[in-house]
Amino acid sequence: MSLKRIKEDLMELGKYGRDKPRRIETYEDLDSEKGITRPTGTEANKKARDYVVSEMKEAGLEVKIDKVGNIFGIKKGTKPDKKSIMVGSHVDSVLNGGMFDGPLGVMSAVEAVRRINEEGYEHERNIEVVVYTSEEGSAFPIGLLGSSVLIGELDVEEALKTKNEEGETLEEALEKMGYKGDYEKDLDEVEYALEMHVEQGPVLEDKEIPVGIVENITGITWVLSTIKGAEDHAGTTPMNMRKDALVGAADIVTYVNKRAKDLVEEHEGSTVGTVGKLNVHPNGTNIVPGKVEIGIDIRDVVKDNMNTLVEDTIEKIESLVEKYDLEVETEIPIEHTPIDLSDEVVDTIEESAEEIDIKTLRMDSGAGHDSQNIAEKVKTGMIFVPSVDGISHSPMEWTEWDDIEKGTKVITQAVKNLANK
Amino acid sequence: MSLKRIKEDLMELGKYGRDKPRRIETYEDLDSEKGITRPTGTEANKKARDYVVSEMKEAGLEVKIDKVGNIFGIKKGTKPDKKSIMVGSHVDSVLNGGMFDGPLGVMSAVEAVRRINEEGYEHERNIEVVVYTSEEGSAFPIGLLGSSVLIGELDVEEALKTKNEEGETLEEALEKMGYKGDYEKDLDEVEYALEMHVEQGPVLEDKEIPVGIVENITGITWVLSTIKGAEDHAGTTPMNMRKDALVGAADIVTYVNKRAKDLVEEHEGSTVGTVGKLNVHPNGTNIVPGKVEIGIDIRDVVKDNMNTLVEDTIEKIESLVEKYDLEVETEIPIEHTPIDLSDEVVDTIEESAEEIDIKTLRMDSGAGHDSQNIAEKVKTGMIFVPSVDGISHSPMEWTEWDDIEKGTKVITQAVKNLANK
Repeated sequence: MSLKRIKEDLMELGKYGRDKPRRIETYEDLDSEKGITRPTGTEANKKARDYVVSEMKEAGLEVKIDKVGNIFGIKKGTKPDKKSIMVGSHVDSVLNGGMFDGPLGVMSAVEAVRRINEEGYEHERNIEVVVYTSEEGSAFPIGLLGSSVLIGELDVEEALKTKNEEGETLEEALEKMGYKGDYEKDLDEVEYALEMHVEQGPVLEDKEIPVGIVENITGITWVLSTIKGAEDHAGTTPMNMRKDALVGAADIVTYVNKRAKDLVEEHEGSTVGTVGKLNVHPNGTNIVPGKVEIGIDIRDVVKDNMNTLVEDTIEKIESLVEKYDLEVETEIPIEHTPIDLSDEVVDTIEESAEEIDIKTLRMDSGAGHDSQNIAEKVKTGMIFVPSVDGISHSPMEWTEWDDIEKGTKVITQAVKNLANK
Repeated sequence: MSLKRIKEDLMELGKYGRDKPRRIETYEDLDSEKGITRPTGTEANKKARDYVVSEMKEAGLEVKIDKVGNIFGIKKGTKPDKKSIMVGSHVDSVLNGGMFDGPLGVMSAVEAVRRINEEGYEHERNIEVVVYTSEEGSAFPIGLLGSSVLIGELDVEEALKTKNEEGETLEEALEKMGYKGDYEKDLDEVEYALEMHVEQGPVLEDKEIPVGIVENITGITWVLSTIKGAEDHAGTTPMNMRKDALVGAADIVTYVNKRAKDLVEEHEGSTVGTVGKLNVHPNGTNIVPGKVEIGIDIRDVVKDNMNTLVEDTIEKIESLVEKYDLEVETEIPIEHTPIDLSDEVVDTIEESAEEIDIKTLRMDSGAGHDSQNIAEKVKTGMIFVPSVDGISHSPMEWTEWDDIEKGTKVITQAVKNLANK
């Protein structure tokens, strides 16, 4: 087995979409200003796809492209009529992101196939390496786009008509890149799905465990609110004659943080609540804020806990009307229910890691992934590797090569076991 | 006496610096998007100055311009060796401001002279109508520029070298407008100073009193602070592993508001404290805020109360380090001490209003004015007229014509009384 090979893959992919393409081999090589920008439809995205397809073919995979540009690399099993096992992730990135979020899941899948080839390991099921289109939604503004089409939640034609900021449709972008195919993937023919990903959080690093096995993917609700008061002169408006929208908004920031912590204690759970966005109008030091917009992100793997925090937060926002004589508006633009991954696959991953003596931790995913879509149709599992400082979606995203090797070993073992199950 | 005349003056001046010059006669004529932009050095600023100078000459005033473009229109008294009385304000505006802030004080002074002329009222002291340069600091970034030079706090040469955003110096701008003079004004030859201004707050309107007499001009301190935590993924970072800079900033917003209210109660005073500016980084709904910058405006006419709120606020900001493990930096870029206006002038204004049966209210000014500079050298008074909805520095700034007439009557009467005192 060879860490060297997947390391080369990831360093090569890590050049596409960087300002000045550089080979990043160590954490010290990172530049906090210059990350990877590789949204769907860009030249860098095409290069990354081309590289993956080339490596798939090199590994003997038969490559097929579907209508929204999802890539499948198929290695036939000894019993190709059995349902297959699908393994992979994405190669698009956020704006100014890191080099592992996505590519690690794709290249570890290719690497698993290479190692299986080298061993001459016989497997009954077909193994299909998958690259999902537009997981991040950073150009065409639909996250998890490719997997949403695969499970039939998003209509193919609707997806293809989606436009990026330049007004280009996804269909045009795919044609330009040479990734507008006509393969029709039927998930009924897939028995198991796997995805390896960076954790994007601090838990594995904190506990010094190299591999996480995801049991649940968090539910996500976004609550956006506009709080309106009266814009006034900060010097001439007495305290008792103000309607300060920021004073109201500050109550919400404090409340969401405290209530989330309380819920974690009450349920020994993993509720998180964040006011990540807050815009003040007109935002002058000497002007009483007339309007504030806030964006709140609420997540939990337990649906009831997530809903409790959402409902309590909205109630608190509405209480500002009476407390401060403010006007409030609230909308919920994103609402994903939590997803349980397959117990059978989770158990198999755990057993696979034990076989090769690698320590694992059962955990939840606080971020969304294509696997949460696939899990609605297919028995699905995910494995995580540690993120240095818990950082992702940042040029400073990093995972140690040693952890990547351990993760790759575990996913290879799990693919082998599931392919003959 | 004629409201018609000063109304025409103000409507004419109210055209200069508007997008499409329009005659604004009623509140309903206002357009909330289109105010007056008339910083020093603009064509609109030159037009406004030319209009005032023309009206000064028409009223028989001898016009002199000093080195920083302050305009003086002098009407000789019967005893010109006695110290003079100076009355006026400014004609520059903020960006997208209103039509009364400044011009009202200038034109009411010219109107007072006209009325005194018409009456044939004999006065001993010279009456000098003044237009101060660059009160707002909206092009050349020094507020109260002209009056700061007059009192010797700001060096003439330093003032002239100040540049606007286009890189033009004040000297070049004044030469271009034809307002670079060489008159040397000596404030030792001035006995009294007066300024009429819109209140810019809601108090007079709220109490239904047409004229305010300013006893004190507020002290102003700005506290700017940067609060640093750790930028993290809102989904994958457990509540107990966060350093959320916005949660810390929200504490400050809540504290400043509450502490200011408490100080008002404790001292039956007029303390105000406002977090008017708040910038979140990176400001994404799904990212735990890593950095927040806040701008805090603290004012009081009682120096000790202002300083108490400033000190308590800084202490609170510093307490975030221990409470949330955040880093904080604090700076104080603006610190003006409160100014007491002249008791003698305040009493004279009050008596003058009583003579002509106009109701007044003694009050404080929560905004800064050139009079706070002049008061350091000369016995100074200010009168306020009501601002509709307390609004200024906005296209919606408005004062009713009836209140303008009452204010003009009071300032005319006060000029007459002070000129013979």
